[in-house]
Amino acid sequence: MRSIEVCFSPELIHLHEVTGKLVVVVDIFRATSTMVAALAHGVTEILPFADLEACRAMQNQGYLIAAERDGLTAPGFELGNSPVAYTAGAYAGRKLAMTTTNGTLAIEKSKGAAEILIGAFPNLQATVTYIQSRDLDVLIHCAGWKGRFNLEDSLYAGALVQALGESHANREDGALAMGSLFAHEGNNLVTYLSQASHAKRLQNHGIEADIDFCLSLDLYNQVVGVSQNGELRIV
Amino acid sequence: MRSIEVCFSPELIHLHEVTGKLVVVVDIFRATSTMVAALAHGVTEILPFADLEACRAMQNQGYLIAAERDGLTAPGFELGNSPVAYTAGAYAGRKLAMTTTNGTLAIEKSKGAAEILIGAFPNLQATVTYIQSRDLDVLIHCAGWKGRFNLEDSLYAGALVQALGESHANREDGALAMGSLFAHEGNNLVTYLSQASHAKRLQNHGIEADIDFCLSLDLYNQVVGVSQNGELRIV
Repeated sequence: MRSIEVCFSPELIHLHEVTGKLVVVVDIFRATSTMVAALAHGVTEILPFADLEACRAMQNQGYLIAAERDGLTAPGFELGNSPVAYTAGAYAGRKLAMTTTNGTLAIEKSKGAAEILIGAFPNLQATVTYIQSRDLDVLIHCAGWKGRFNLEDSLYAGALVQALGESHANREDGALAMGSLFAHEGNNLVTYLSQASHAKRLQNHGIEADIDFCLSLDLYNQVVGVSQNGELRIV
Repeated sequence: MRSIEVCFSPELIHLHEVTGKLVVVVDIFRATSTMVAALAHGVTEILPFADLEACRAMQNQGYLIAAERDGLTAPGFELGNSPVAYTAGAYAGRKLAMTTTNGTLAIEKSKGAAEILIGAFPNLQATVTYIQSRDLDVLIHCAGWKGRFNLEDSLYAGALVQALGESHANREDGALAMGSLFAHEGNNLVTYLSQASHAKRLQNHGIEADIDFCLSLDLYNQVVGVSQNGELRIV
């Protein structure tokens, strides 16, 4: 029986075994949602960076550069961290270098896994189908908010746990709790998550369209985002 | 409006502000349940220790000494970490020095708080009533399991969040999630928690009586456990 577990923060990842696992990195508001949007709309490759300057330097190599700090586009970057910036296809065919507050750190700290996927609600079912085809234990790595538990990443973890109930029935405590939570609150995702602290922060920035996108289920049924050799691509 | 938040592990406590808060330390299986049992049945004072040898040395000063490592009584100690060892009143009037895997660490790491309470299901309502009488924001500090999220401490946090819904309505994400979880699963606590990984570990040790005790609600309606100057007492 394959197992499934949840790590609620990059600050706890050293307590989990990543080696040999299929790790799903999730940062719903907004890094992994934006990555999925970019790949679904034609961006060919994404290079995630933890560091702002290393990301900026990629512009000289022809990369589109995107950076967010504390919810805003970092000064001097072409793009921030808005998924809807990609949905018109304006960046199809481009390569993207990207850094965000929490999401890229979680990818960085997932190194050593057998496979690393990029999770988001708009490609939930595609990700589920792919995971079911792989004979690997699953670790869901929530980016959290500055190291702390957050509601949206945890609920996505719960959605994945529920959807993988048959194939990954061996649930550790975090997976049990989040599976239950999603079972009870998942049919009311937008209202429930409007209470989340980061949703409130984003509402203050006037980016409701981003929030709507990030909580939309299954817009892309063929798109699975994978991290290979440090690059993100469609699998 | 007073706030309430949950820290799921001592490894995340540095990301939370403890100064000025009322911190409730919880280690359901079994440290804080045992502490509450001991105080309710006449132990006058508990000194928690992170270190085994420092705890053992207290025997020369007339203390009863108790130590648990990995779920078992540590060699050379009079008691382990079983709450039912105290319920017949055999240790009434004694002072107790105690060390456990996760619980005493969480108490240690809560230093600096305005007040530190010891939380357990057997004195839940007494603790709620006390907290409502204090004009302080609440931080629930879950001991977890070797730094990881665990189900029983998190559900206790949810119980407290639910019970403090009127007085502490400003809930951060962890409190929101656990309040929801307890609202949906709390009426079925014993069955739900029988899935928890630590409950399974304890069942393997043949200590079902401890589990039953730890999940019994409101046995002691006057007992509130508080940490003051490093000592635990009834408030």
